[in-house]
Amino acid sequence: MRKLEDLQSLIASSVDKLKYPEYPAELYEPIKYILALGGKRMRPALLLMACDLFGGDVEAALPPALAIEVFHNFTLMHDDIMDNAPKRRGKTTVHEKWNNNVAILSGDVMLIEGYKLMMQVRDNLLRKVLDIFNDTAIGVCEGQQLDMTFETSNNITIKEYINMIRLKTAVVLGGALKIGALIGEADEKDANLLSEFGINLGIAFQLQDDILDVYGNPEKFGKQVGGDIISNKKTYLLIKALELVKDTNAEKLARWITFPTFDAPEKVKAVTEIYNSVNIRQFAEAEMQAYAEKAFEALDQITLPEENKQYLRDFADGLLVREY
Amino acid sequence: MRKLEDLQSLIASSVDKLKYPEYPAELYEPIKYILALGGKRMRPALLLMACDLFGGDVEAALPPALAIEVFHNFTLMHDDIMDNAPKRRGKTTVHEKWNNNVAILSGDVMLIEGYKLMMQVRDNLLRKVLDIFNDTAIGVCEGQQLDMTFETSNNITIKEYINMIRLKTAVVLGGALKIGALIGEADEKDANLLSEFGINLGIAFQLQDDILDVYGNPEKFGKQVGGDIISNKKTYLLIKALELVKDTNAEKLARWITFPTFDAPEKVKAVTEIYNSVNIRQFAEAEMQAYAEKAFEALDQITLPEENKQYLRDFADGLLVREY
Repeated sequence: MRKLEDLQSLIASSVDKLKYPEYPAELYEPIKYILALGGKRMRPALLLMACDLFGGDVEAALPPALAIEVFHNFTLMHDDIMDNAPKRRGKTTVHEKWNNNVAILSGDVMLIEGYKLMMQVRDNLLRKVLDIFNDTAIGVCEGQQLDMTFETSNNITIKEYINMIRLKTAVVLGGALKIGALIGEADEKDANLLSEFGINLGIAFQLQDDILDVYGNPEKFGKQVGGDIISNKKTYLLIKALELVKDTNAEKLARWITFPTFDAPEKVKAVTEIYNSVNIRQFAEAEMQAYAEKAFEALDQITLPEENKQYLRDFADGLLVREY
Repeated sequence: MRKLEDLQSLIASSVDKLKYPEYPAELYEPIKYILALGGKRMRPALLLMACDLFGGDVEAALPPALAIEVFHNFTLMHDDIMDNAPKRRGKTTVHEKWNNNVAILSGDVMLIEGYKLMMQVRDNLLRKVLDIFNDTAIGVCEGQQLDMTFETSNNITIKEYINMIRLKTAVVLGGALKIGALIGEADEKDANLLSEFGINLGIAFQLQDDILDVYGNPEKFGKQVGGDIISNKKTYLLIKALELVKDTNAEKLARWITFPTFDAPEKVKAVTEIYNSVNIRQFAEAEMQAYAEKAFEALDQITLPEENKQYLRDFADGLLVREY
């Protein structure tokens, strides 16, 4: 099997070679700009990895892998408008550098360009691959909508939250793996199992992200501790706490998330203490563990040599670090 | 051949039957809303008409025709954000009724839903039809970008303008006709000729629209005379006038298009007189006529029974009214 980092490099150099017209410049410059911002290229690398695991031709899987990357950057371009985000990977976002209209229209073109790349598969896979791509794309849009809706809602259930992160983050991992597997001539059953592996791993990974925000070692993860607490982000931790915390602590939590101004470290400390009072961390870790196990169960059922399965297990273990 | 108005009714009732999920409501309500606003359903009807002309099964062409309508409404939803338009077909636009984010994301979903509908063709046509759809979609986005760029540019050539209206308005007519023809089992050559007919007719129709704005009978066409003049819209007439008008009239025209406030009827009268001084109407009519002729030349070469060609000629004559 090829190493994941080699596949990521292959994607990176192939993204650099993508060609777009010069005219109209306002339409195509932002596409070149956002694609050049870099990133880990994890989603398209997963597509190539899936193809490789089933003994397929990685070169043949390259255009659909690029489709996933172009599609992902389309969602970033539009999400950044909606989230009013000034920066993306340390650089000015497209709607800030140009304007909203440019970001809307260039994003639209990227979605279409995604389809053009995704269509570069064998005829006998065309319909199947596009069906998966359609479902993935619709899922991601639904997830983004739910994420926005949740921002202004105060009675979200854990079930609704998990569904949102499944759609917004996980289905694209599942879709990329499934398409890659099919190009590698996996049968439908194995492709579905690999997709399930990816979706459950994606959910576990997002839950880990929620936990790390509060309980992670900032030196190890390079993120400010408590960013989600400061911004009242509806993470698993906050939703679960709103469900479990009672009496005085419930009043305290309700006050902290409505204060218009506050001392940030004080808020992080106080909310973390409330979380600790009802063992939120343990609940979150158990939930994350449950999805990781679902991922490994799906993986176990795939008809691949043990060595290839171990490759996937190692990949999952690398994503889900267990020491914070 | 089926009557065009029957095909339009068939589209209208089929659009009403399109089903979208209930959840998330903020994502799917706007889609149902914009599709229910009505409109002439001309683009999808043309797709059915093309299929019918070649003796194809109109029912089989219905999903791709609906794809064209859903795609068209996606472009309207996003264009209305970009143009800051408060109304569409007399009703509040989606971004005004909800907000920009909802209109961006619901529009994105409509583009994907367009692909899902367009994929409902026979396997042997799938790749060909989607290639046409991709090219059409990219063309429309390029046209919209050029239209926005032209708003703030003062040295657009007639060639650039014609290219813009070709992309923004005409290619989707060509694409719809070509897809319909292929579903009706036309050969590639005839499908291309019918596409050319549609594109040239679309350009002629847009030029007629420019002429009618200034020289049309308002009682006959239900539009305010001079709307384009009042808003300094870069129509064929204005671009040609900026090219031809010299000396005092050039200074006058330059002043009228820079005045921040003015008496509207006075501006319309003054600019129309400047147009008349260099025979702008005659130039525009000649250009429109040239594109109409190109359309008819393409039509003449199609291998269809004379009766079917006459149907298309009558349709074109209906669009291009010659008395204003």
